[in-house]
Amino acid sequence: MQSEIKFRLDPRLAADTIDVCEGELCTLRLMNDARWPWLILVPRLAEAVELFDLSPSQQQQAMREAAVAGEKLKTLSGATKINIAMIGNMVRQLHIHVIARAEGDANWPGPVWGFESPQPYDKNHALALVARLRSLL
Amino acid sequence: MQSEIKFRLDPRLAADTIDVCEGELCTLRLMNDARWPWLILVPRLAEAVELFDLSPSQQQQAMREAAVAGEKLKTLSGATKINIAMIGNMVRQLHIHVIARAEGDANWPGPVWGFESPQPYDKNHALALVARLRSLL
Repeated sequence: MQSEIKFRLDPRLAADTIDVCEGELCTLRLMNDARWPWLILVPRLAEAVELFDLSPSQQQQAMREAAVAGEKLKTLSGATKINIAMIGNMVRQLHIHVIARAEGDANWPGPVWGFESPQPYDKNHALALVARLRSLL
Repeated sequence: MQSEIKFRLDPRLAADTIDVCEGELCTLRLMNDARWPWLILVPRLAEAVELFDLSPSQQQQAMREAAVAGEKLKTLSGATKINIAMIGNMVRQLHIHVIARAEGDANWPGPVWGFESPQPYDKNHALALVARLRSLL
């Protein structure tokens, strides 16, 4: 069992994302990439890498938060499909991608990971989107 | 709530995979692609597309089965990292990818989806791997 005391957000995740809000278990962040509405949920648990590093109740809570985030993101964006994934090949700290995909988006129907370069939000767009996400989540 | 009675495995998933076993909620199948040890878990629920189409208890069960499959696959393969994902941009029937990734594999650290063409197992290799998976899962 991991202790919440030692949790520190991975520096690369911190650099690539914008703070949104705190869930019961996870820190919710917006990926700073205007190509896709893309949330990152990070369980506040030190040293969690794989989903099976979490206890069953932590797994349940993390996936519940991801499902709710996905449902809200679909409503907000009118997405065709929500992609939910734990990859972690680059950043090992366990994090859950929740991404709104739409037919005709930048790499539809291919994956978002590794596709060209992020397009950072302009500041006003990011602020507005974060405010909207906070009101929903 | 979906009924189990109407569940039918998507024809494309059926064509791309090899039967392994039945979990409490999910049908477990091996992707017929020798580049990566790659399981597909399909909840036996008609019309489920998104994780949030499942009830909370079904979500919990599906993710529990994915976590256990991931842990066993990591043990079996000595993987560096397990990737767990629900994408569904191509096949809408809800299915969970559980993939054993290793440094230096065919597209490490990039994603497996959309990367070049599958390399089907030779029959004896597939039979041996399925038998080993059945003994673990």
